[in-house]
Amino acid sequence: MDAAYAFEDAPVAYVGVRKAGDKEAAAIDWSHHLSRLSESRNVSPLKGLMKYMAQPGMISMAGGLPHTSYFPFEEISAQTYVPDAFSLTPEEKSSFGWLWTLFGGSAKKTKEVTIPKYVTGGDLKGVQLATALQYGQATGLPLLQKFINEFVIKVYRPANPTTTTLVHVGNTDGWAKCVLTLCNPGEGILVEEYTYPSALASAWPIGVRPVPIKMDGEGMLADDLDRVLSGWDVEARNGMKKPHVMYTVPVGQNPCGTTMGEKRKKEIYDVCVKHDIIIVEDDPYYFLQCGPYVPKMQRTTVHEAEEGKDAEEAFIKSLAPSYLHVDYEGRVIRLDTFSKTIAPGSRLGFFTCNPVFAERLLRAGETSTQAPCGFGQALITSLLQGWGMSGWIRWLRGIRAQYTMRRDMCMDALYDNFDLREDLRATDISAWDGATVLVAHKKGVQAMEKYDSSTSLFSIVPPVAGMFLWIKVHVYNHPAYEDLIRSGMSESLASATLTFRLWKKLVENHILWSPGWFFATDGVAPDITDMGFDPAVESKGMEGCFRVAYSSASPEDMKKAMNIFSEQVVKFFE
Amino acid sequence: MDAAYAFEDAPVAYVGVRKAGDKEAAAIDWSHHLSRLSESRNVSPLKGLMKYMAQPGMISMAGGLPHTSYFPFEEISAQTYVPDAFSLTPEEKSSFGWLWTLFGGSAKKTKEVTIPKYVTGGDLKGVQLATALQYGQATGLPLLQKFINEFVIKVYRPANPTTTTLVHVGNTDGWAKCVLTLCNPGEGILVEEYTYPSALASAWPIGVRPVPIKMDGEGMLADDLDRVLSGWDVEARNGMKKPHVMYTVPVGQNPCGTTMGEKRKKEIYDVCVKHDIIIVEDDPYYFLQCGPYVPKMQRTTVHEAEEGKDAEEAFIKSLAPSYLHVDYEGRVIRLDTFSKTIAPGSRLGFFTCNPVFAERLLRAGETSTQAPCGFGQALITSLLQGWGMSGWIRWLRGIRAQYTMRRDMCMDALYDNFDLREDLRATDISAWDGATVLVAHKKGVQAMEKYDSSTSLFSIVPPVAGMFLWIKVHVYNHPAYEDLIRSGMSESLASATLTFRLWKKLVENHILWSPGWFFATDGVAPDITDMGFDPAVESKGMEGCFRVAYSSASPEDMKKAMNIFSEQVVKFFE
Repeated sequence: MDAAYAFEDAPVAYVGVRKAGDKEAAAIDWSHHLSRLSESRNVSPLKGLMKYMAQPGMISMAGGLPHTSYFPFEEISAQTYVPDAFSLTPEEKSSFGWLWTLFGGSAKKTKEVTIPKYVTGGDLKGVQLATALQYGQATGLPLLQKFINEFVIKVYRPANPTTTTLVHVGNTDGWAKCVLTLCNPGEGILVEEYTYPSALASAWPIGVRPVPIKMDGEGMLADDLDRVLSGWDVEARNGMKKPHVMYTVPVGQNPCGTTMGEKRKKEIYDVCVKHDIIIVEDDPYYFLQCGPYVPKMQRTTVHEAEEGKDAEEAFIKSLAPSYLHVDYEGRVIRLDTFSKTIAPGSRLGFFTCNPVFAERLLRAGETSTQAPCGFGQALITSLLQGWGMSGWIRWLRGIRAQYTMRRDMCMDALYDNFDLREDLRATDISAWDGATVLVAHKKGVQAMEKYDSSTSLFSIVPPVAGMFLWIKVHVYNHPAYEDLIRSGMSESLASATLTFRLWKKLVENHILWSPGWFFATDGVAPDITDMGFDPAVESKGMEGCFRVAYSSASPEDMKKAMNIFSEQVVKFFE
Repeated sequence: MDAAYAFEDAPVAYVGVRKAGDKEAAAIDWSHHLSRLSESRNVSPLKGLMKYMAQPGMISMAGGLPHTSYFPFEEISAQTYVPDAFSLTPEEKSSFGWLWTLFGGSAKKTKEVTIPKYVTGGDLKGVQLATALQYGQATGLPLLQKFINEFVIKVYRPANPTTTTLVHVGNTDGWAKCVLTLCNPGEGILVEEYTYPSALASAWPIGVRPVPIKMDGEGMLADDLDRVLSGWDVEARNGMKKPHVMYTVPVGQNPCGTTMGEKRKKEIYDVCVKHDIIIVEDDPYYFLQCGPYVPKMQRTTVHEAEEGKDAEEAFIKSLAPSYLHVDYEGRVIRLDTFSKTIAPGSRLGFFTCNPVFAERLLRAGETSTQAPCGFGQALITSLLQGWGMSGWIRWLRGIRAQYTMRRDMCMDALYDNFDLREDLRATDISAWDGATVLVAHKKGVQAMEKYDSSTSLFSIVPPVAGMFLWIKVHVYNHPAYEDLIRSGMSESLASATLTFRLWKKLVENHILWSPGWFFATDGVAPDITDMGFDPAVESKGMEGCFRVAYSSASPEDMKKAMNIFSEQVVKFFE
């Protein structure tokens, strides 16, 4: 694969590689997907002077840029971790010791990066504060753009040769800019039936409403997508026209934890080609793909090679490919973020998409966020430069190993505390169809092969990616359930009432989980600042569900929390 | 003045001081100023869990936050300038030497700040990366908020006791969020007749159009504002309803360089009370208030005290007060930025406004930019903490002195190259009414007291603040002017043609100035990427005008540029 080539006369850069057929791919007209708002954005007149500024010898007195000598930072430096700071097989160490090995003071674990105010040789020789802290194009630092382009080619292997990248200030703002760029008020966006509430919250105020598509254990269903779009009835939808934009979290789906493989992505993509749908792929958990959960007793440690081309290739191949890889037309806007792989406070990420959308997103950036913060860009670019591409990939592998270990710790605790067995009968969560559903019973309840489903406590699908367990507690097996029904409650209201009771019990015992109803797509979730409970809104199909993040608590706390839950859920059913 | 007090149960903090009458001030209902978009923003359901997360002993598995051990930054440090890095009397030094004194390597000029990953004692003891790089509330780091609040009380002395602050990612995004929060499509915003084009560019795509108000040498005119609003005729305005939002740059106005004193601000404010107008005060140049220009021969160096309460008070008193100081009702949203006082790449600033608007702006942040970049927040907060309030004010005084020197250098060069004299006759730029207008003639053209206006070359008002000279070249005195008129051109088209000819001449001689038509409010400026010239759009009252930034070139280059301009403008008229 050759080097990236520059998109001439444009501030965005193609990451693709020239080959026969480029013209055709680039020739598709995407303009009918742009919102009225986006269409009416002009190039800022001051930006038009930029090319004159770049002429050698030009004394620019056009822009209100402060002289770099007034930046009170002479140099910034950082102690950064080395790429292999985290082991690829963390489970070998004791579950308590792993976390603290970093802080033992081994000098080998950190490396210093330094960013001076001035670097000789221009912006591609090294990051300098004189550039990073000055007004810059919304395309970001040239060295960062270069690194991102190389990374996109290496890891995502985009099918469309005109694919370009553009930095943004995090996926939340990236998605908000996509909505403003693509959608007019009153339009619908296609989403998974359970989805990330903040994504809906960005779209809601501009009058854009979710159109849920059914899921199974691998995510969105291509046939349901086709069914919804083929049968679109504007009148039956209260005047909403047929959607042309999809929002999807295909890996480590939030909240369900589903991950979509290449085959399904191709099926979905084909439906999108058929109905001319733009896919916005929000993929923050892409590098947290842990593979299937294997119970502790059956688990064997696989020693991967630390470095080398083979190890890198094996890692890349182990990841479900991005929609970019199947996107031969250029109808995908991928959102990447450094929030999960470096730190959320980075407020830095990037779009990968066709040049038409990239140019409109760039214009949107110029009149709002401008370039991402220069301090963040400088430090992250220097970190990545210092590590190199191989170092960055080694770091991602270490982070993946950490999340694998965290997922395993939580699952192991449930295995220890319950009889957890695969249940081949259909579950009552359609999003679990086809996945390995484990059903929990109190230990020793029955010695039979086939459990009595009336004594089951909860079910769970061990996630293969991301940060979340999605647990469904079988509140309909609760002893009070029938009484509630007899008292006149609907099934769903009775279930919701019991779910809320358990959620409160967990909070009283100092465990905070997210209730499932946060992730419903049938309305914007209510203000639950005081956890006020409005069954009319909250009981729509989310009965008994909880989203459990295994990303942030210490291993000790996580273990403790899983044990407290185990205790409480057993008590709850008594 | 007492300390700031916290706004209970809200993530924004009052900066005002409790006193009798607070209730009344807080009781004004501002909700009718909110846009439909802003009204429909909900609290993110996940944010509603935040207060549970803060309970001691709570094990939170609710949010998808990465564990802080995964942030690959162990420590960040910076070599920062000391607060008195810049002299308060820079003109004492040679014009070439001043810039380089900083780089001489004097160890005294820098100070190290260090930000560790973990600080014991909580977030108000010091900045820690574990907090700064984690997901955070859109209100920013607590220590930064505290510093900003103290600064606002000390320097702006807001009249409204319920005034609150909220960080943003720079004034461009701050203003864009104000437009979305306050304006519905089709509405108008009141602006100065010459204004900052990027501000219009943010409002234009959502269908918000500028309503220009006449200016004089101090900025917007209160009587014209009242006239426009009192006589508002929806039909005559093509259905546009009476505006309720004003955008203004009252200090170092962009592009005209005008600065508005307290008396005028009170007059404008009273008109705004009468017509229920919200004032958005975009004030990036507030600390670049240099005072009136005094020609070199008459200039005397005033030695200000370096430090101490009196010196600080004198500095604060020397600044035209902010609208906040006259805003007894709470109808001002002030935009502050660190772009001109620290560095543009900071992408950090803050709103100061009433709590109702602050809460809506906070919601807008939560679903888009979230908190500003943690690297930037951490470094800037540590810089300000390290300097302390007195150090920060000393730094601002040094920066002001630098801009004063730059302004003086440019004006001195014009004085040296031309006969530059005050002309008491009315100018043809209304924005200069009441200001000291200097008119330039070629040296030695006439020895008479009264110049012949037909031989004048250009006129200028020396700015008292900001970064810009606004020069009007008298193209109607050009020898070709009459010929162009005779050839059938309108006066304005002839003037515009000659202006463009001079602009191109300057570019050929490696001087890039901004043409005046960029700053017109009678339409969104055309795409001038190729400097294509559309007289129909560009010739509306901007004939002969140039905006000249004296902020970024080196003193040598600035001097050179002023000399080249002097040469070229004389040649141009020959």
